[in-house]
Formats: sequence, structure tokens, C-alpha cells
Amino acid sequence: MNELLSEALKLAIPNEEEVEKAKRAEKELLEKLNSLALDYRLVGSYARNTWLRGNLEIDVFVLFSSELLKKELEKRIIELGKKIFEKFELRYAEHPYVHGELLGVEVDLVPCYRVESANKIISAVDRTPFHHEWLKERVKGKENEIRLLKLFLKANGLYGAEYKVRGFSGYLCELLIVFYGSFIECIKSARRWDRRTVIDPKKGELRKGEFFFVVDPVDEKRNVAANLSIDNLARFVHLSRLFFENPSIEFFIPKRKRISVDSISKAMELRNSEIFALEFEKPDIVEDNLYPQLERAGRKIFEMLKREGFMPLRFSYFAKDKCYLLFECQIKELSRITRKLGPIFEDHDHVKNFLSKQRVFEPFLEDGRWWAFDFRRHTKPEEAVSEYVVANYQALGKNVGLKLKKGFKILKGEELLSASIIEELAEFLGVRE
Amino acid sequence: MNELLSEALKLAIPNEEEVEKAKRAEKELLEKLNSLALDYRLVGSYARNTWLRGNLEIDVFVLFSSELLKKELEKRIIELGKKIFEKFELRYAEHPYVHGELLGVEVDLVPCYRVESANKIISAVDRTPFHHEWLKERVKGKENEIRLLKLFLKANGLYGAEYKVRGFSGYLCELLIVFYGSFIECIKSARRWDRRTVIDPKKGELRKGEFFFVVDPVDEKRNVAANLSIDNLARFVHLSRLFFENPSIEFFIPKRKRISVDSISKAMELRNSEIFALEFEKPDIVEDNLYPQLERAGRKIFEMLKREGFMPLRFSYFAKDKCYLLFECQIKELSRITRKLGPIFEDHDHVKNFLSKQRVFEPFLEDGRWWAFDFRRHTKPEEAVSEYVVANYQALGKNVGLKLKKGFKILKGEELLSASIIEELAEFLGVRE
Repeated sequence: MNELLSEALKLAIPNEEEVEKAKRAEKELLEKLNSLALDYRLVGSYARNTWLRGNLEIDVFVLFSSELLKKELEKRIIELGKKIFEKFELRYAEHPYVHGELLGVEVDLVPCYRVESANKIISAVDRTPFHHEWLKERVKGKENEIRLLKLFLKANGLYGAEYKVRGFSGYLCELLIVFYGSFIECIKSARRWDRRTVIDPKKGELRKGEFFFVVDPVDEKRNVAANLSIDNLARFVHLSRLFFENPSIEFFIPKRKRISVDSISKAMELRNSEIFALEFEKPDIVEDNLYPQLERAGRKIFEMLKREGFMPLRFSYFAKDKCYLLFECQIKELSRITRKLGPIFEDHDHVKNFLSKQRVFEPFLEDGRWWAFDFRRHTKPEEAVSEYVVANYQALGKNVGLKLKKGFKILKGEELLSASIIEELAEFLGVRE
Repeated sequence: MNELLSEALKLAIPNEEEVEKAKRAEKELLEKLNSLALDYRLVGSYARNTWLRGNLEIDVFVLFSSELLKKELEKRIIELGKKIFEKFELRYAEHPYVHGELLGVEVDLVPCYRVESANKIISAVDRTPFHHEWLKERVKGKENEIRLLKLFLKANGLYGAEYKVRGFSGYLCELLIVFYGSFIECIKSARRWDRRTVIDPKKGELRKGEFFFVVDPVDEKRNVAANLSIDNLARFVHLSRLFFENPSIEFFIPKRKRISVDSISKAMELRNSEIFALEFEKPDIVEDNLYPQLERAGRKIFEMLKREGFMPLRFSYFAKDKCYLLFECQIKELSRITRKLGPIFEDHDHVKNFLSKQRVFEPFLEDGRWWAFDFRRHTKPEEAVSEYVVANYQALGKNVGLKLKKGFKILKGEELLSASIIEELAEFLGVRE
């Protein structure tokens, strides 16, 4: 096991070159910052020497008086950006912040408010300096354990709290290592985590609660694992079990499946289901805004398919050059005819009304209740989806809905195979290599 | 209204010829019976002069000591049959009885036990003489009202308590007229009957109970309407309402729909559903035994179709030269692929077991639970039915099950149209004339 972890560490620890590059950039950055008489903090994984090889980024938080308006903060950080970087871009999270490059190293310059304590924050980013304060001494000597955990998560698609991933944030990784002491102890324990596990690093306590909760040591109301989906929690638990059953370096190396169009095509034939995708233009918004909208749109359409009797199996969503909502239904075609519930026979007025409607086929009685034969508007799932999207685009996420309103294509069969979404299709269908 | 009822009465009252024929047969019958020194009773609609035109049948009940064994009763009634009729057949209800013909009139010769009162009966038929006693004076002067009700019911397929019809028995009709005084008062009131109406002719009381119940005046525990289905109750209530909205002689004349093969064929195309019938040999049992078995078989298969996701709409059953079970499904074909529920992720042992199975496609997590892709055995409803029937014939009614085991044909499309079941198909699909 120790040998294995040493091998894994080689993949996790930044090489000398990266460290040298980082040091040069840091020196340059600090000189500039110091010349500007600012209240700033170096925070994040670079500041604590816990960054993963190849993931170098320096985070600088600039503290401003809490009396300043948000607008003013934006102005000030742009001015700073101009002074520090040759060129930079303004990125948006809860606040705008500056993203630039210095001597080949990416730097985030984030404005925040100077507040007394973490429970008096104005914006979520104001918490970060407190996180750094809490962690900086506690992670000492455990930096590489943190890197192992990050690599393990990254190789398995679980690293990152952004909505696209809904995995483990860097901060969460560091707290887990502070709590457990080492990577091995952490995943050893994770094998028995469940959806009610509560981890409290400040109290050093493992207990049960209402849902999976990692208590933020600087703000005990806050769940550091709030963005972790239950399925990614499950994947981590499952991987931890597999790792102990059969430890291998493979757990630290991202798997790239080689899937051929042919194998997808064969899978589709074997399944004999209706697989189709909505393809539409990607709205110009950040991923953390786009992905929840895609999920909402997918879920709403899935629910409609279920309601209408098309027996959908699963849905998926993703953005590449375009956006895709992917569906699989167990039914390719329903009968045109269906049943329409009427009143019980005793209910004279409603019966009269129900039977007075012009209908092709005669109503009938069943168990003391009137029923009629009715016609479905749509017999095919993709037809139902097309109509639903046109009529309900407003319910499908603001920006996604508007793009859908502008137009979409429904891809089936060959069209699906020729869109560059083979990997996503393979994942969706559970096609093995 | 009086004119209309007079017109209807002409259709309900036996003509002179029929009455003459009856009298001649009765005379001959009584002579023979009297010569045999028997304790007998003339009962039923002939004895009370309430038989419907064209439905002449003389019922004679022969009373035996309650100490005789059932076997002995059978022997005695056969001996009597031989003495009275030139030829006769032995029919079976709860007991065997003799059915013969005398001067062109059908006669039932039914053996029963002589008991003190109706609540001490040994067999259900022992009640009949008590029914006759209760009714004979009470129906006097109301014979034609009874005939009107019987005709109204018969014209609309609601006359008869046998399982094939599940409608109103003759005795029930007579009780209703005794209770209401006239046909018009009866159907006037029936417009407001519901599934909890209780009619008590002995107490002269209309009240609410648990279900539709007509109290037998000779045995208050017994529901004279026990065999009336809720849908036939509903039909009667509905017809009563329609009659008062638009009184017409049509309510007293059986409707014979003229349905063409072409109109059924068009209906089938329009519905775009899967309509199919199981055709199999008719077991040699009485209808009152056959029909419940057919219903059971149909219901079991219907439930299987529902369970397997074929979204059946309705089923029907009937016997002609052969037996038929008729089904309509909203789905012609399902995907081969489906979902199989697995354990929640925390349940280590079950997860391990679940994931250890050899599977074509990879299992997946959803909301903290494992699922796998699984294959359906059958993708078409008629295939599912074939397999189900072969494997479960024992659950489909004793005699019907055995015939199904011997073999069956599944009729679809053209085969359905060429079987002589056009009227039943039209009724099943609600095809209008």
C-alpha cells in the first residue's frame, strides 16, 4: 500500500519546474501588490501548498471596507487588474473578479469585504480568508495527503464543487484530511459513510444528521459538502470500498473509454428503445448557471414523458459546442386511443355532461363509473417533446428556455451517432468499452 | 305516457294463442302430477301469470322430506321425469332437475326439500315455494306492470340473474313492482338509486346500506340483487333517466346493431392499438360456471399485461362455438431494455452482490440507489400472454385453464375480423352503427 501511495504521489505532487514557475510568479505578484498599499491575503491551495500537479493557480483576495458598495468593489478590482496584469478578464461568480496571468501562471484576484467573523460575511467569498486562517496551520505536514485525495477524486470525475461536477471542493478535501489525518484513514472511513453522516472537523466529531453534512469550522451552519450530489457521495463510498478490495494505481489515473460508433449502434439495436436528443444553441452564460437550467429542462421533459405514458428510462444533459438533452423511452409509439375518466353513475349532472360530448366511440361503464375513449394528441415521444418544448419553453430555465424557443433539432438514430456526443451517449447507455 | 305504455304492453303480454297453449299444457301436467300422489307446487312466473310474452315456461317444484339424501332426490326426480315426459334432459343448477316439454310448452320439474321456513332451507331452491307464497297475493292486479319492467330490462340486456347477464331476476322484478306499485313508479325512483340503496319490500322501506341490496321478504339476510353487477345497476339507472327525458317505445325493443367488418377495420386502424383475442375450445360446463371462469382468466391476463407495462385498455370475454378472451393494449411493442431496481448505496453486501452479476450494460446510480439495465423476456403483449397462459393455466379457472393448456390461437387483425365475433368486437371497441 505504501508503495502504491508513493507511486500515486508522484502523479499528485507538482514537479520542480511547476514549483519554480510558481515561485517566480508569486514573487512578481507580491512585489506588485505590496507597491499598491493593499490589504490582501494569499489564500487557497497555492498559499497552503496543497495544489495538485498541473492545477497551479494563485488566489489573491483583496479586502475592502464593508461600507463600500458592490459596484465600487467591481470598479476597484478592475483598476487593480489593470495595474497588475497586461491583460485580464473579468469573471463572474457571486461577484465579479479578475482573472489574469503572470509569468505563465494563472492568478485570480478576488475582491471581498473585511468582516469581523465568518458569520458576519456579506458575500460568500468573504468567508475564504477565514477558511485560510483556520486551515493554514492545521494542514501543515499533511499537504501530500490532501493531494492524494484530490487526485483520487479527480481521476474519478468527483473533484470540483461546480454544478457540472457536483463533487468535492478543494476546501472540502483539506477539511477531510485535517479530520482524518491521512488519505488512507479518510477513504477507510468513507466506506461506511451514508446519506446521514455528519463530519465536524472543528469538534473532531463524526455523527448522524438529516443528510450528508460537513460542518464548516468557521461557520457551523454551513455545509461544506452542500454541492456534493448524493450519487457522487455514493460513487466515492463505492470507490473507497473497491480501492480496499483491490488497491491499484488505476484509481489515480483518469479512465478514458474507447467507444466506437459501432458499439453504440449495436447497443441501440439491442435495446430497441427510443433514444433521442434535443440539440440547441448554447446560451452565453457561465456553466454554473447553465447546468442547473439544463437539468431543470431535462427533468421537466422527463416528467412530461412519464405523465404521457412513454415510460422514459433516464435523461441526461450536457453542453459542448451546443447543448444537448438526452432521453431514452421504453415506448416508440403509443396507440392513438386512450381512456378518459368520467363521473360515477350516480352523479346525474356530470354524467349528462360527459355523455353529451361528440365522440367517435361509445362511452362505457366500468365498476360503476363512466369512461370514454379519447384520442392522444401525440403517439410518439419525440412528437410530444417537440410540442411540449414549444408550449412550455418558459418553464425550462430562463436562458435555456429562450434558446429552445429560438429552435432545436431532434436527433435520432444516425443523426445521434454522427453528432460528436459518442462518449456521452456511451455513458448514458452504460455501454462498456 | 299511458299510450306509450299500452303500446309496450302489447309487446309484453302473451297473446291468446300462447295462453291457450299454456292452459292445455298445464291441464295435462296437473293431471299427471295428481295421478302420482305428490306434494308439488306450481311456482314461478307462469303460476303468478307474470311471464313475458314468448318466455313461457312452467315451473313445478316437487317437495320431498328433508331426511332424504341429495342422491335420492336426483333418483326420484328422474323417475318422475320418465313418468311425465316422453323425453327430457337432466339439467344442473345447485341440484339436478328435469327439463321436459309437454304439448309444446317447456316445463322445469325441480326437486326440493320441504322445510319449516325460508331460513331453514337446505338448498337455495327450497326457498322458491316461500317466494311464491309471499308473492302470489301481492302481485294480483300488478301482473302487467311486472311484464313492462321485464320487457324494459330484456330489451336492454338487463334481464336475467345468470352470470352471463348479471342483471335482474324475474323474482327481483316482481318484488320491485310489489314495492313501487307500478313500472313507472319503479323507474321514476330508480333514477336516484345509488350503489348504497337498500330496498326492503317487506318493511316497505327505502334506505342506505353498504351496497345495493334488495331484501328478500322471506329471508332478510339474503340480497335478491346479489347477482346484479354494479355496471348493470348503473345501466338501469341511466336508462330510467333517459326514458323520462325522452319516453319512447324504443326502450322496449331490443336494439340490433348493424356493424360491418369495414367499420371495425376502420376503427382498428384509427385506434392504432394492439387488439387481439385468445380463441380456444369451449369446456363442456354450464354457462353459470363457464362465465366466471372466463372472467377470471381475462382479469388475470389483464393484470399481467398491466404489470408488464403493456398498458391494457380493457378486456372482454364470451363464449360462442368457441371461447374468446379479448384484449386491447395501448402498446404494440416495448423496448427490450428496462430498469432493474438495486440496493441503496450504503447497503454494502447487497451492492456487491448486485454489481457482481454479469450484465451487458453498466449499472448506474440514481438518487443514492443502484440500478441496472435489464432485458425484458417479451416486448409484445401477445407474446407475453402466450407465455403467461402456458405457465399459469392453473390460475385461469379450472375448466377454462385446462382447455387453454390444450391449446389456443391468438387472433389479430384480419384473423380477428374473420372470426364470427364482429358484434362482440363492435361492443368492445364502442363502434357505433
